[in-house]
Amino acid sequence: MPQTPHIERHFTSSVVVRDVVIGMADGLTVPFALAAGLSGAIDQQAIIVTAGLAEIAAGSIAMGLGGYMAAKSDAEHYAKEREREKREVAEIPNEEMREVAEVFQAYGLSEEETWPIVQALKRQPRNWVDFMMRFELGLEKPEPRRAMRSALTIAGAYVAGGLIPLSPYFVSETTSVALLYSVGLTLAALLIFGFVKGRFTGTRPLRSALQTALIGSAAAGAAFAIAKLIGG
Amino acid sequence: MPQTPHIERHFTSSVVVRDVVIGMADGLTVPFALAAGLSGAIDQQAIIVTAGLAEIAAGSIAMGLGGYMAAKSDAEHYAKEREREKREVAEIPNEEMREVAEVFQAYGLSEEETWPIVQALKRQPRNWVDFMMRFELGLEKPEPRRAMRSALTIAGAYVAGGLIPLSPYFVSETTSVALLYSVGLTLAALLIFGFVKGRFTGTRPLRSALQTALIGSAAAGAAFAIAKLIGG
Repeated sequence: MPQTPHIERHFTSSVVVRDVVIGMADGLTVPFALAAGLSGAIDQQAIIVTAGLAEIAAGSIAMGLGGYMAAKSDAEHYAKEREREKREVAEIPNEEMREVAEVFQAYGLSEEETWPIVQALKRQPRNWVDFMMRFELGLEKPEPRRAMRSALTIAGAYVAGGLIPLSPYFVSETTSVALLYSVGLTLAALLIFGFVKGRFTGTRPLRSALQTALIGSAAAGAAFAIAKLIGG
Repeated sequence: MPQTPHIERHFTSSVVVRDVVIGMADGLTVPFALAAGLSGAIDQQAIIVTAGLAEIAAGSIAMGLGGYMAAKSDAEHYAKEREREKREVAEIPNEEMREVAEVFQAYGLSEEETWPIVQALKRQPRNWVDFMMRFELGLEKPEPRRAMRSALTIAGAYVAGGLIPLSPYFVSETTSVALLYSVGLTLAALLIFGFVKGRFTGTRPLRSALQTALIGSAAAGAAFAIAKLIGG
C-alpha cells in the first residue's frame, strides 16, 4: 500500500513542502498540548521542560523514521508491482491487453475504440509496463533518495515546530506565565503555519489558518483537562 | 495537494487498516518513548502517568483532527479540480483533446493511434471529465463520509496503542519496575503490530516487525537520553 501521498501535476509545490507540513503540524501541536497539560497539573517548570524535550525527541524520531520507512516501502512496493506487471506483459499478454481495454471501457469507450491503443502498447513492452503501472494501478514512480531527505525534513520540522511552544518555559519565572506566553506564541505560529499551508495546498488560507489553530487548541484543551483531572 | 495516500487495486486491504496503522504506529511509539524518557529523569510515577495520558490525549486529537482535515481537504481539492476540468472540457475542448493525446504520447503512442480515444471521449463529456481527473491529474474520487470515520479510527488506534506502554506505570510499585515492564510489553506490541502491518502492506512481515520495533526503540532511547541529560 502506498503510504505516502500521491503527487499530481496541478499541485505546484514540492514534496519538501509536504514533509515540512507533516512534521510541523504535529510538532507545533503535540509538545504545545503536552506542556500546557502539564502546566495545569504540575508547578515544576524543570519537569515540563524535560517532558517537552523528551516528547520532541521521541516525536521527531518516530515521525522521521516513520516517513523513512514509508518512503522505502513505497519504493519497494513500486518495484515489486513493476516486476509483476513486466512478467504478466511477457507471459500473459492477452490477459493484459484485456486489462488495458477494461481501463478504457470504464469510461464508456467501446472495444473497437480502444483497439489501436492496445495494439500500439503491445509493440512496445517497456512503455506498456509503465502504462499499466500508472493507469491500471495508479502508482507513480517514486523518486530515488527521497526516503532519507523525507526523514530529515519531517524530523527537522517537528523539532522546529516543537521548540516554539516550549521556549517560554525555558525563560519564564513561573509556570503560569510560561503557559500564557506559550499559548499566545503557539496560536500565532499555528495561524501563520495554517495560512502558509493553505496557500500551498489550495485550501483557502484564512480557513486553513483557523482550522490549524483549532486543532492545536482542541489537543491542548484535552491534554490540560486530563492532566488537571489526574494530576492537579 | 492530496494529503491522504492514494489507494490502488493491488492493495487488498481497506482504508480502515491504513488509518489504524497511522494511529497505532505513533500511539505505540511516542507515549512509550515519553514515559521511558521521563523514567530516566523523574522518580515520580504520578507525574509520568499524568504526562503520558496528557500526551495520549494531545496526540490522538491532533492526529485524528489532522486526518479529518486532510480528508476534507482532499475531497474539496477533488471537487475543485473536477469543476475546473468540466469547465475546460466545455470551453476549450481542443486544448483538452490535445492533453488527452499528450497523456498517451508519453507512452510512445502516435497521434493517429490516440485519435479514436480522443474522439470517443469527446462524444461523452461526463466520462471525459472523469477520465481527465484520473489520467491527467491522477486523482481518485474520494469516498464520502470518509473524513469523520478516518478521524475516529486514527484517534482510537492512537489511544489503544498509547495505553499499552503506559499501563505498567498504573500498577507497578516503582518507576524502574514499570519501565522494565513497559519496555517488554511495548517491544512485544511493536513486533506484533509491525508483523501484522507488514502482512497488510506487502513488506515482508518479519522485516516490518523489526523495523517497527527499531523505530520505537530509537525514539525511546533518544527521549531517555535527553531527559536524563536535562532532568536526571
